[in-house]
Amino acid sequence: MGKIAIGQAGGPTAVFNSSLAGFIEDVEEEVYFVFGGYEGLVMNHIKKASPDDLARVQAARGVPGAMLGSGRYPFDENGINEALKHLKQHGIDTLVFAGGDGTMAALQRLEETAADEGAPLNVIGIPKTVDNDLGATDHAPGFGSAARFVASTVRDVSRDLQAMKNFEQVRVLETMGRNAGWLAQASLHAGRWPQDGPQYIGVPERAMHLGDVLAAVERGLQSFGTATVVVSEGAAFQSGEQVERSHVNGRVVLGGISSLVKEKIEQHLGVTARAELLGMQQRSASSLISQQDEREAYDAGRLAAQWAQEGLSGQMVALERRESGTYHVDLVPKALTDVVNAGERKLPEAFIEEPEQYRRWLTPIIGGPLSDYPAPLKRSEGNVIHKN
Amino acid sequence: MGKIAIGQAGGPTAVFNSSLAGFIEDVEEEVYFVFGGYEGLVMNHIKKASPDDLARVQAARGVPGAMLGSGRYPFDENGINEALKHLKQHGIDTLVFAGGDGTMAALQRLEETAADEGAPLNVIGIPKTVDNDLGATDHAPGFGSAARFVASTVRDVSRDLQAMKNFEQVRVLETMGRNAGWLAQASLHAGRWPQDGPQYIGVPERAMHLGDVLAAVERGLQSFGTATVVVSEGAAFQSGEQVERSHVNGRVVLGGISSLVKEKIEQHLGVTARAELLGMQQRSASSLISQQDEREAYDAGRLAAQWAQEGLSGQMVALERRESGTYHVDLVPKALTDVVNAGERKLPEAFIEEPEQYRRWLTPIIGGPLSDYPAPLKRSEGNVIHKN
Repeated sequence: MGKIAIGQAGGPTAVFNSSLAGFIEDVEEEVYFVFGGYEGLVMNHIKKASPDDLARVQAARGVPGAMLGSGRYPFDENGINEALKHLKQHGIDTLVFAGGDGTMAALQRLEETAADEGAPLNVIGIPKTVDNDLGATDHAPGFGSAARFVASTVRDVSRDLQAMKNFEQVRVLETMGRNAGWLAQASLHAGRWPQDGPQYIGVPERAMHLGDVLAAVERGLQSFGTATVVVSEGAAFQSGEQVERSHVNGRVVLGGISSLVKEKIEQHLGVTARAELLGMQQRSASSLISQQDEREAYDAGRLAAQWAQEGLSGQMVALERRESGTYHVDLVPKALTDVVNAGERKLPEAFIEEPEQYRRWLTPIIGGPLSDYPAPLKRSEGNVIHKN
Repeated sequence: MGKIAIGQAGGPTAVFNSSLAGFIEDVEEEVYFVFGGYEGLVMNHIKKASPDDLARVQAARGVPGAMLGSGRYPFDENGINEALKHLKQHGIDTLVFAGGDGTMAALQRLEETAADEGAPLNVIGIPKTVDNDLGATDHAPGFGSAARFVASTVRDVSRDLQAMKNFEQVRVLETMGRNAGWLAQASLHAGRWPQDGPQYIGVPERAMHLGDVLAAVERGLQSFGTATVVVSEGAAFQSGEQVERSHVNGRVVLGGISSLVKEKIEQHLGVTARAELLGMQQRSASSLISQQDEREAYDAGRLAAQWAQEGLSGQMVALERRESGTYHVDLVPKALTDVVNAGERKLPEAFIEEPEQYRRWLTPIIGGPLSDYPAPLKRSEGNVIHKN
């Protein structure tokens, strides 16, 4: 019997802990917890999981955050060596980490370096991302719940806005997503009624033209007296750069494009607009977890445990969707090399051009369509556009 | 048989439409809808509800926003006269409006002016507010759901933050509430574990001392490596004024105190902090509706219909909580004069001084305690505080 260590890295999701619970469920070997992501490996924050620890983790399905602690950490060569030293000290022969592209690259380097040093370490990756920018998989656990949050919130906030059209007419909502538009585009799933969804969606994959944004907003104003705009944090105007909100520990945090779009709309259309970030709830809202996403997260964790015990290495649990019939994903091993080489996974052209295609792709992942809202009421006299 | 008109005014809530659905349920007289709040009265956006309209409203329980449209409108003497003229034209003898303090004051003026002119109009008010600043009632529909949203979100975002403590250490979350701290203080309900709730709550009723904020944050950092701060949009430092984000159509919109608090924390403690507004979801999140709040909203609407048909006038449906035993509210009539004279209802001293007392008061209103999260895991070695 070997010893397996597990850790979590990167920004958490609402179902990050479900993968951890799934892992615990199917592991029979001795389990070690790595606290605080890769930093925990380097700092030797590694400990044998107690029965009480294991019980808490099993109770954490659908609990947001990361029970083991996660975080961001620059993993240099020195760090790699320290990590391997500590794993060896504990007699750990298999390392499982849940995370995104950076995590998969780190696992790969650990495996390579360990092999070079003649002290092999088996590594298995569990995918995790709310941005859905991880390659070599149909999608990754965490994204479905974040997408459900975005769709539901855009619908609710749009209903709220429609009620306030004599006070404010436009809301610009900014989503996460880094350099990929998956999350922002998920807002087209907001509802059956056009005024429940966004009139315009800005994604990083396609530069925004101010004229298009203004035209879409004006159509919304004409039809409903209001307009909702959704922009991905990485979206930019044709003429401009991505907006950087801040640098945190050397990492660029994107954000603020919504304020810029709001200003342009107010300036050109003479209406009252409000910009809001959807915020950290996108990746942590327990109330809008997609049940499908949660199951997939859990199953990915279980499978990682099985593979680890079977001696598989250098693989990530990937989700492969069957081409036809009702939705079904197979969990299959993908080489970490392929995952890393795939690079940042962007929203495909087809999903921008044909929203209906994206909608079909997305519906099962977000746990099915949102509950139905009745059609908004309308006065017969047509619509009044309120301007300042 | 008379004719009854109903409208909605002010900022929507997640259960505003439940009151409307309750009203429809119990009304047997002819129903007219007023579209767009008081502006609809003045502009004569009043129409007889069709069977289809009524069906949509009945399907709108738990649908955020305002099915009739709401909004803000300066209701001057000229407006009052126009409103009464239009109601008379339609042969309407009873007007029911759901809204906050401004709405109750407007109803009272309409009743008085109509009586003075010898063409009596019966008026009934249905309470609505997320801020809970409405007088003469234990609490008002809308608040319970917003409070549940705040508590749940603060807990989820705190769990997320704990996972990221090597990247950012402090989050400052800003709630609605105008000049009352009810919503911000609801965040103390976030969870069983101290790190799931805020380390400091700033309310408008009590000036914040920077030293207190910093001390509370430092205690959080010492104990957990992170700290969450919740501030009401109307909170201010002892030395400062409330922060006004903007003026919209002449109305001051409070907001921005969270950014100020974030800056002070970064400056004095050398940690990385993030400020976020909880945003419009507070009053519109369908996923976090309190079932108790929803029922009370519905029942208040039903009772308003009954009273209207019994010829009662000048009354608001108030919620009166029984003093002892399990939670029970009686819906009782309160004179609009008393509601208006009660003024803005602040968070009582006792609920600031003794959080446990507020927690007991609040629990039934938010629909019972949140589901239990397992205790966070802890490394045995104690905590590392990350600073820049």
